[in-house]
Amino acid sequence: MTVHVDVIASVNEARSDDFVNRTSIVIDVLRATSTMVTALEYGCSSIVPVETVYQAKHMQGEGDLLGGERFGKKISGFDLGNSPLEYVFPDIQGKRIIMTTTNGTRAIYKAQKAAHVIAGSMLNAASCAKAATNLKRDIVIVCAGTQDRFSLEDGLCAGLIIEELREITGGDIELNDFALAMHCTYRELRHDLEEALLMCANGKRLCRMGYKEDVLYCSRVNRFTVVPVLRELTMLPYRQF
Amino acid sequence: MTVHVDVIASVNEARSDDFVNRTSIVIDVLRATSTMVTALEYGCSSIVPVETVYQAKHMQGEGDLLGGERFGKKISGFDLGNSPLEYVFPDIQGKRIIMTTTNGTRAIYKAQKAAHVIAGSMLNAASCAKAATNLKRDIVIVCAGTQDRFSLEDGLCAGLIIEELREITGGDIELNDFALAMHCTYRELRHDLEEALLMCANGKRLCRMGYKEDVLYCSRVNRFTVVPVLRELTMLPYRQF
Repeated sequence: MTVHVDVIASVNEARSDDFVNRTSIVIDVLRATSTMVTALEYGCSSIVPVETVYQAKHMQGEGDLLGGERFGKKISGFDLGNSPLEYVFPDIQGKRIIMTTTNGTRAIYKAQKAAHVIAGSMLNAASCAKAATNLKRDIVIVCAGTQDRFSLEDGLCAGLIIEELREITGGDIELNDFALAMHCTYRELRHDLEEALLMCANGKRLCRMGYKEDVLYCSRVNRFTVVPVLRELTMLPYRQF
Repeated sequence: MTVHVDVIASVNEARSDDFVNRTSIVIDVLRATSTMVTALEYGCSSIVPVETVYQAKHMQGEGDLLGGERFGKKISGFDLGNSPLEYVFPDIQGKRIIMTTTNGTRAIYKAQKAAHVIAGSMLNAASCAKAATNLKRDIVIVCAGTQDRFSLEDGLCAGLIIEELREITGGDIELNDFALAMHCTYRELRHDLEEALLMCANGKRLCRMGYKEDVLYCSRVNRFTVVPVLRELTMLPYRQF
């Protein structure tokens, strides 16, 4: 059966009926979903995405860690920021992380109307594509973007996931116009994703802030197999794909 | 001086401050701007884009022709529809055309806040790029899209115009993330634009409605040198580029 794959350019553009009965893959490559994938890969038990700093602090229980950013920087009083490289340490093993970020968290909230919500990044693109295929529904990929505008790195990751979906399904997928464009964009830039991430607006901004290592890290493809899946407002690690 | 070139994915996404002090190129390849370019190339004196059928009828003076579409079809009582191939006949020479279309006209109205507004299509892409360069301002390319969503053919045309701008400026342009993506999309598909236009959503829809010839016609690159320029709510033909 042909799988329909739509890509949505930014959170702002997503409409409620885009999600009904579908599997939604939310992408915020720089850096929220790359960080979630990293944290779950390195052994945290779950991630609770929340919209405000107040909610995060209010929800924190015994042993929970607080993570996230405002204006790209760690929030005062939080244990961790939004840099994936902060999450590769043993301290997070077995911990629940309450996380709030500017764009990624909003995208996950908006996608909640979908039958399934999973978090995608370059790091786990192939596993994401397999997970979405196994869920046997049409797919809507939401690029989180930045302040309601398209971000190239999210579009590139959408194109990469489409490439993986094409391989898995033997090409039996139908793309909306924006998905076609993102697949072309990925194919044009796939031989130097690192350079692409360094030259896009968020990449430049993060380099100026001293996070070049994060940008390079987030441009790596298919390093992890974990797929964060949303269950009752909590991201849990799935690995059976 | 480096020229900044932003591309906006659809009318809905455009914000007023995207236009201030800039030259705006409005693109609705299938079919409003392709039709405007054709009509001016074939000798109509000017085109007045209006938003409603009522406005069009109200504005019609002695000798004026009414053109446009609703749901892709000619409007009852109008002289011409929105097919560019209706505008290649001597009847339109010297005539003013009052035109209303669903997406293209809205995009032109929204772009009015720009210092200059010109209409672009595959047919006049190189001349558009030259005109915009001569106007010596930063550039914002507005893809009209379809009902507030991105349309591939408009993005491809934006990418083509960026390619022309790169040649004219010797590469001295700076692109926003969406412009980068559209340039990549164009480069990936440039060897078969006809096929790309036939496979995108609007191309398929027009083929189903019997307008395949329009789709093929609108995929032709740099056939005309005329550039429609907006002056006091009227599109006039400029050729000095």
